Amino acid sequence: MFLGAERVTGGGAEVRSLNPGTGEPLDPVYRYGGAADVDRACRLAEQAFDTYRATTPEARARFLECVADKLAALTDTVVERAHQESGLPVARLTGEVGRTTGQLRLFASVLREGSWQGARIDPALPDRAPQPRPDIRQQRIPLGPVAVFGASNFPLAFSVLGGDTASALAAGCPVVVKAHDAHLGTSELAASALRAAVEECGLPEGVFSLVIGDGPTLGARLVADPRIRAVGFTGSRAAGLALMRTAAERPAPVPVYAEMSSVNPVVLLPGALRERASDLAAGFVGSLTQGAGQFCTNPGLIVAVEGPELETFLTAAAEAVQSNQGATMLTPGIAAAYRTETEAVAGHAAVVTLARGPVPEGASPCRAALMAVGADDFTTDPALQREMFGAAGLVVHCRDLEQVTDVLRCLEGQLTATVHTADSDLDAARELLPVLERGAGRVLFNGWPTGVEVGHAMVHGGPFPATSDGRSTSVGSLAIERYLRPVAYQNLPEQLLPRPLADGNPEGLWRRVDGDLGRH
Amino acid sequence: MFLGAERVTGGGAEVRSLNPGTGEPLDPVYRYGGAADVDRACRLAEQAFDTYRATTPEARARFLECVADKLAALTDTVVERAHQESGLPVARLTGEVGRTTGQLRLFASVLREGSWQGARIDPALPDRAPQPRPDIRQQRIPLGPVAVFGASNFPLAFSVLGGDTASALAAGCPVVVKAHDAHLGTSELAASALRAAVEECGLPEGVFSLVIGDGPTLGARLVADPRIRAVGFTGSRAAGLALMRTAAERPAPVPVYAEMSSVNPVVLLPGALRERASDLAAGFVGSLTQGAGQFCTNPGLIVAVEGPELETFLTAAAEAVQSNQGATMLTPGIAAAYRTETEAVAGHAAVVTLARGPVPEGASPCRAALMAVGADDFTTDPALQREMFGAAGLVVHCRDLEQVTDVLRCLEGQLTATVHTADSDLDAARELLPVLERGAGRVLFNGWPTGVEVGHAMVHGGPFPATSDGRSTSVGSLAIERYLRPVAYQNLPEQLLPRPLADGNPEGLWRRVDGDLGRH
Repeated sequence: MFLGAERVTGGGAEVRSLNPGTGEPLDPVYRYGGAADVDRACRLAEQAFDTYRATTPEARARFLECVADKLAALTDTVVERAHQESGLPVARLTGEVGRTTGQLRLFASVLREGSWQGARIDPALPDRAPQPRPDIRQQRIPLGPVAVFGASNFPLAFSVLGGDTASALAAGCPVVVKAHDAHLGTSELAASALRAAVEECGLPEGVFSLVIGDGPTLGARLVADPRIRAVGFTGSRAAGLALMRTAAERPAPVPVYAEMSSVNPVVLLPGALRERASDLAAGFVGSLTQGAGQFCTNPGLIVAVEGPELETFLTAAAEAVQSNQGATMLTPGIAAAYRTETEAVAGHAAVVTLARGPVPEGASPCRAALMAVGADDFTTDPALQREMFGAAGLVVHCRDLEQVTDVLRCLEGQLTATVHTADSDLDAARELLPVLERGAGRVLFNGWPTGVEVGHAMVHGGPFPATSDGRSTSVGSLAIERYLRPVAYQNLPEQLLPRPLADGNPEGLWRRVDGDLGRH
Repeated sequence: MFLGAERVTGGGAEVRSLNPGTGEPLDPVYRYGGAADVDRACRLAEQAFDTYRATTPEARARFLECVADKLAALTDTVVERAHQESGLPVARLTGEVGRTTGQLRLFASVLREGSWQGARIDPALPDRAPQPRPDIRQQRIPLGPVAVFGASNFPLAFSVLGGDTASALAAGCPVVVKAHDAHLGTSELAASALRAAVEECGLPEGVFSLVIGDGPTLGARLVADPRIRAVGFTGSRAAGLALMRTAAERPAPVPVYAEMSSVNPVVLLPGALRERASDLAAGFVGSLTQGAGQFCTNPGLIVAVEGPELETFLTAAAEAVQSNQGATMLTPGIAAAYRTETEAVAGHAAVVTLARGPVPEGASPCRAALMAVGADDFTTDPALQREMFGAAGLVVHCRDLEQVTDVLRCLEGQLTATVHTADSDLDAARELLPVLERGAGRVLFNGWPTGVEVGHAMVHGGPFPATSDGRSTSVGSLAIERYLRPVAYQNLPEQLLPRPLADGNPEGLWRRVDGDLGRH
């Protein structure tokens, strides 16, 4: 663990990450920390907060860039270790390092642009009757220390140095990360990069700590700590709900940004099926099985009107699934859960299994699956509407487009919703759009939801249970807003005005003056 | 009640608002509604949602202006009724009508300005390697039907047509209001104004309903209804916490914006006390006793370093409290709670009562109170740190400025924090500022926190328990963001693009293109 500047070995149980392909434990042995370690990490974070948040945006931008540089310098080492721990291909992990450093640099650019500070000024109106108006200025300030839980399926981009950490650090919040047991070595390497950047930039040590421990005890303790002011999490629905409960039961509740569960429905409209059923099948199975289906945005549900075109699609998709070689999942536990979940759906009286891939070798096999069910059965049984984390797809066949809408309406909140269209489907798509946008954080046309661009317009979020708080995104520059809150200053003396709100706009920021946006 | 377009009398218990001065019940008799009424209001809201949110911002702006016009036309009637029901002075209530119509018109202007839609465009990069970038666009859409709970202390500006309703309607959310029992007649009048505007603007009837019932049953049922997607509330801590629990226990939890409790600390720095102790005392007691102290931002706590200047302040403040005539509180229940709370604090072994006002006549008397306690006792007993809703002030005397900081740090989250300074206090104020902004939503210098400007830079919010969600404000134009969430659209066909995101920027909006803000 890293408790501030110090490397510490916990006094709890021994724990090692596994090679999920072989099931063999990997060296070195780590040990769980305990309550005292959480307490110390949170104390250091709290001590660092006022100093860290008082740094200039430029200083924090350089810090994030320094973190990115340090991680990039470790690329080969970290990719090798992440490959051993996660079973993910080297090429994918190399790309993920790039995405991770890219995210850090994106937030550096966001810091420099400055709009994240939300500067607003309502100037005084000393002559207003019956009472003069005071001078009121507003900016956003960071919430305080943030707890981040590393995700198993992105050992770099959504773990120790991932999106949650980058956006919280950008906002001015110290971060305490709980490492994911599945990739402890990767976590240690990433944390060492971050620690080196903290030292090099001369920041207070409590800006970042890394703790190791199990979720129900150490993780819960971290979320319950009064110095923690927000929580970022990506993982299972059960674990996310537990963190939400812990946070809600605190004497002073705090926001939890938990990304939990999504089946990511894909509608194939009739014209699209007529035009390109086989291409759609290839695209679908490619997206479904990529990375053993271990993406939050994996397209787990196809919704379409039955007929010969859908049959063509299903035949092609079944062939593709049968010839899919399968893959190693992230952990033996995830593979076991995948098996249980797919078998439960496959065993449902109304479900037909259209294809299974061969059983791949190894300790954590993901065997692709394609199943089908009628819309009447699907809409009446919530058990069929749940995520199967892995490369399992369920096709819901509908009588008509009205029933397609019924299926979409019965679903819980989603990260994404997708429609495939031909020109002839435009009216149907127009009808569907309000249903899709109500249910999801991102609506795609003629694409596949895996692959989440890191930019300014991305939303990786959505209504519950896709996330615990659908008002925000965990990917993209808007994520910085999750860790900020607005503060108004009334008649603050000129000498004390924060620079974003100073007279004359010395930072050249976009500011809203009496509601009017401009660089003034 | 108004369930959509229909006036309905509930089948539950009879209920009448009281004249708080006389304790006499007022005509007419109202009756509580029940589960079926809540169900119908929510069903109508849900049915109205897609139509209402598809209206143009201009149409909604005209609707809000129409509501304001209808309310303004009822000014005399509504002020008279509100005066009977609340005991608040006619002049104050007339001003409150103006504030209420002003809020509605402010949100109309926000709608027309358009930035609330948060338009962002990351254009496609078809030639990007290794993979082309899709076109991604983002806007904010409304959450869905919103439940609003009328507040007792602002029978107009934070009740049926108040800030929560105005911001939710502006965002595109239908609203179901639970009327406050203390001003049922005022609620009915305000609701009739809103209903008339709904008809005149040709909007679906479910855009607005008004239900009557008690909080623990009907109110809880409203918050638990699956069609409700957010909750706005201003009231007591106990009631707010109960709504938070109900919302968190839903199968799909929803955001609750509850404004609950604040003591609004005021620091008198040594230079300010030396310069103008008597003026400060007059200002303080004026703010403390205004409206019988029934403001969320009432300055209930003075923090200062002990010494002869503080004694001068206390002597003057005690005289002002003794000569304060007292006032009628909003309800007999609030007056009883005030008596209990002040007596509990006054009976504390470490607390000295410096002054009490005379007992005013009537059924709901507020007798002003000024008490004092040492910082050591204050910081160690949370019972002294709680809000006394009414005109009771507690002065905490400190050994030195360091102890002033200790006092501020021990407080829960606040709506406001105030400092009075002289030029010689600037360094001390600079030290205090980070402490104050961490603890509050608004920081004031050399003023009094009662009086909340409705503008663009105002924050009326703050860390728990000032509010349940310190990331937002309930007053000012930023409040519209509480009822919105971002949605991204990937490769949406040109014909389906929402107008804020259309090519060529037909609405002339501020948009962020590849992160760059401009009218492009």
